[in-house]
Amino acid sequence: MPLTIYNSLSKKKEIFEPINPPYVGMYVCGPTVSGESHLGHARPYITFDVVYRYLLYLGYKVRYVRNITDAGHFEEEGREAIDKISTKAQLERMEPMELVHKYTNLFHWAFKKFNTLVPNIEPTATGHIVEQIDMIKKLLADGYAYEVNGSVYFDVKKYAENHDYGKLSGRVIEDLLETTRDLEGQEEKRNKVDFALWKAAPPKHIMRWNSPWGEGFPGWHIECSAMATKYLGAHFDIHGGGMDLLFPHHESEIAQSTICNHIEPAKYWMHNNMITVAGKKMGKSYNNQIKLTEMFDGSHPLLTQPFSPMTIRFFILQTHYKSTLDFSSEALVASEKGLKRLLDAARFLKMLPVHTQDGVNTDKELNEKIQRLVSAFPDFINDDFNTAKVLANMFELVPIINSIKDGLIEPGSISSTTLQSLKEEMDIYLTQILGIEDELAPDVQIEQIMELLIEIRKEARDKKDFATSDKIRKKLEAMDIVLNDEKGGKTTWNEK
Amino acid sequence: MPLTIYNSLSKKKEIFEPINPPYVGMYVCGPTVSGESHLGHARPYITFDVVYRYLLYLGYKVRYVRNITDAGHFEEEGREAIDKISTKAQLERMEPMELVHKYTNLFHWAFKKFNTLVPNIEPTATGHIVEQIDMIKKLLADGYAYEVNGSVYFDVKKYAENHDYGKLSGRVIEDLLETTRDLEGQEEKRNKVDFALWKAAPPKHIMRWNSPWGEGFPGWHIECSAMATKYLGAHFDIHGGGMDLLFPHHESEIAQSTICNHIEPAKYWMHNNMITVAGKKMGKSYNNQIKLTEMFDGSHPLLTQPFSPMTIRFFILQTHYKSTLDFSSEALVASEKGLKRLLDAARFLKMLPVHTQDGVNTDKELNEKIQRLVSAFPDFINDDFNTAKVLANMFELVPIINSIKDGLIEPGSISSTTLQSLKEEMDIYLTQILGIEDELAPDVQIEQIMELLIEIRKEARDKKDFATSDKIRKKLEAMDIVLNDEKGGKTTWNEK
Repeated sequence: MPLTIYNSLSKKKEIFEPINPPYVGMYVCGPTVSGESHLGHARPYITFDVVYRYLLYLGYKVRYVRNITDAGHFEEEGREAIDKISTKAQLERMEPMELVHKYTNLFHWAFKKFNTLVPNIEPTATGHIVEQIDMIKKLLADGYAYEVNGSVYFDVKKYAENHDYGKLSGRVIEDLLETTRDLEGQEEKRNKVDFALWKAAPPKHIMRWNSPWGEGFPGWHIECSAMATKYLGAHFDIHGGGMDLLFPHHESEIAQSTICNHIEPAKYWMHNNMITVAGKKMGKSYNNQIKLTEMFDGSHPLLTQPFSPMTIRFFILQTHYKSTLDFSSEALVASEKGLKRLLDAARFLKMLPVHTQDGVNTDKELNEKIQRLVSAFPDFINDDFNTAKVLANMFELVPIINSIKDGLIEPGSISSTTLQSLKEEMDIYLTQILGIEDELAPDVQIEQIMELLIEIRKEARDKKDFATSDKIRKKLEAMDIVLNDEKGGKTTWNEK
Repeated sequence: MPLTIYNSLSKKKEIFEPINPPYVGMYVCGPTVSGESHLGHARPYITFDVVYRYLLYLGYKVRYVRNITDAGHFEEEGREAIDKISTKAQLERMEPMELVHKYTNLFHWAFKKFNTLVPNIEPTATGHIVEQIDMIKKLLADGYAYEVNGSVYFDVKKYAENHDYGKLSGRVIEDLLETTRDLEGQEEKRNKVDFALWKAAPPKHIMRWNSPWGEGFPGWHIECSAMATKYLGAHFDIHGGGMDLLFPHHESEIAQSTICNHIEPAKYWMHNNMITVAGKKMGKSYNNQIKLTEMFDGSHPLLTQPFSPMTIRFFILQTHYKSTLDFSSEALVASEKGLKRLLDAARFLKMLPVHTQDGVNTDKELNEKIQRLVSAFPDFINDDFNTAKVLANMFELVPIINSIKDGLIEPGSISSTTLQSLKEEMDIYLTQILGIEDELAPDVQIEQIMELLIEIRKEARDKKDFATSDKIRKKLEAMDIVLNDEKGGKTTWNEK
């Protein structure tokens, strides 16, 4: 089964065929660094991290470009163009770029904790003013943009005469021309649906650049078109982002790029669904965001405890990226438990030796079950990156692995081939493709020293030297280490 | 004693008086990310990290700007303008920005290991093309620049008619006009000493931007003038960099900025001296660079072993920043030993309790010695950041601290005031100002468990249970942990 991707453009699953294999170009709309990232932002970058990891695993030479929006992001569809970053910066009385630098660093810090791979290029909007101006000039020259009072707008009505504006998002141009709200500051536009390519900067606006139309700042949509074109060319393989970007952002990107480059920008458009809180999209509009730093330290009132970056990553990958994912502290607690079970089993499996020769007591049914579960990993991932189903299969394998651990299944009942493939595929899919790091792996040195201490204590008890064995137990307890004497004489330990 | 800084412009030490206190603007020329950073690069960023840390400690509101040169860096004085990054990128057949991103990440990784604080803004050259073009336009309008075949040059001779070109570097304009070598590709210039502000891009040049003079790329010097002006204003407090940047880079910055902004850019110019290898500057020209990754893993033939980031930081701070610092593996081995001694003493001192009441046996001479050594810390740092002398005083304190540790000096012989100030100032100067992290600090949990194991072993030996005590020793040895039975019955441990 080849890799198939749900293409938002065709509204169906398509076999993935790169334009120019083995090269793959992928552009993902990155963060707006006007503030801290919240949980909602974790989803697209973790989703496309798995896409990137899998494409690399398949052997493609991927150039993954994810931008940093550090200027000119318009708040919402139809609202007056207010540059998020410079607004905030003026409030905080900081140089906007100082703010940008702080939040960019914080973003990188958080996504390193999520174990996302670094994209190949992370271009910034402010770093590509020249390229954006060049593109706007082309749009003006071709008659698809117009200048008013130092601002330049894209002429959607004109574009729609011979193109399908709405083909990605499903919006109908006639409705858009009719219903877009008339808000203050929109009067410059020929039609309400037109969007800004360049905005003249009001006198107090801090972020401003010289342009052929006077001092101003670029529109949000043109940023991604300019950077994608520069680093991936006029026509590239994958364009990704959250579903909330379908309109107007991606629809407008298609319009701009199509005019400038005479070809539609991306072959496959991928959109992840949203994280919701009680059914509502997590975001500024509903004031229900939980910052990533609050997730990690548990300080937000909606949280009953802190959640580790891997728990959040796992929580996100437990649902297919195109389904909504409702956040609750309870759901994350469940993910935390599930992840621990999975990692414990994976850790044991990794250490389990593979026998060199199969015995006579191979359990055919068990072998077939393992093989069936493992061989479905690639099928699920190939089916539009269904990480949820891969994890579900892993959870069917966990009880089998635990049974080996508990001595209920003899390792010999699994053939060496099956065991080898189980070990290999679990490691590849869990670590390499899903990017789940074993953040719970205990310190090997402490493990070894504790093993020795437990052995010494056992010997002391065997010699009825209870003074020594009690001392060991009590002193460890003072260090928050608890010994558990299990049935059968085995002693385990854990930290309080 | 107030903070004094050796100002390369006046060639003397001056009292540091910020232009607009409590604000301080500091610009430091950052790395060229066309390759991996080498040991020579560690010196400026560690030097100015201490400057930044100390200014923050003094309570100044510092904006520290350190750029990333990702385009247009000219190889050497007088050589034809070759953009380092695009040359390398074409060889490696990579998109230049992919290379830039890789080496920028590597730079950040290494300097995080060096415990350098993140600057407030890290602007990139390619991110400020518009600002550079604006500045070049001004220079053209003012008659200090001229265009030839799509390139723009700064007219040094014209500038020198009413300005002192050479006031920073000490170069004499007449000599410069005479002796600058005539190299291929220089024939466009009116005078050999003129430098490029904008270079027309040859057809195969990958990095190129639209400009009023056609497609091209900016000169190296204009980059820093444009970014310093944008983020720190026309006139700011400190401009720093390596001594190798005095000419032509900083001399040219002064010329450009003075014309554009009608004021000299920086009040204080600070320059660190070079790291040499057998007396020669470490750098491309002598092919004697040791990459930072090679320093950390010991893989370079000039190294006898790996050196930790803190050893390198300590090695650099042991010499005043304006003195040359000759690298050798032996010198670093000595620094490693010295750092360990210092950190061991500092760690003990940190844990040492301060008695609440002074006894009768206070040693006046000893107290005065400690006070004298400690109170000199600020004097030395105020004396143009003399970290070498601060460390020298710390090394006079180490034997005193060790004598307390070994029971040779009673803690009571030091007054509580002296001890308190010793503890506080050591911590402030070592950790906060010099930025030396205790990378050798042992794991507290392992320390505690090992202490218990050593106690159990001692009890076994006291009971003549040598089977148990030998078992503990041998099993630990198998884990590469060695027990050392010292005189007086104390047992310590270390890892092999």
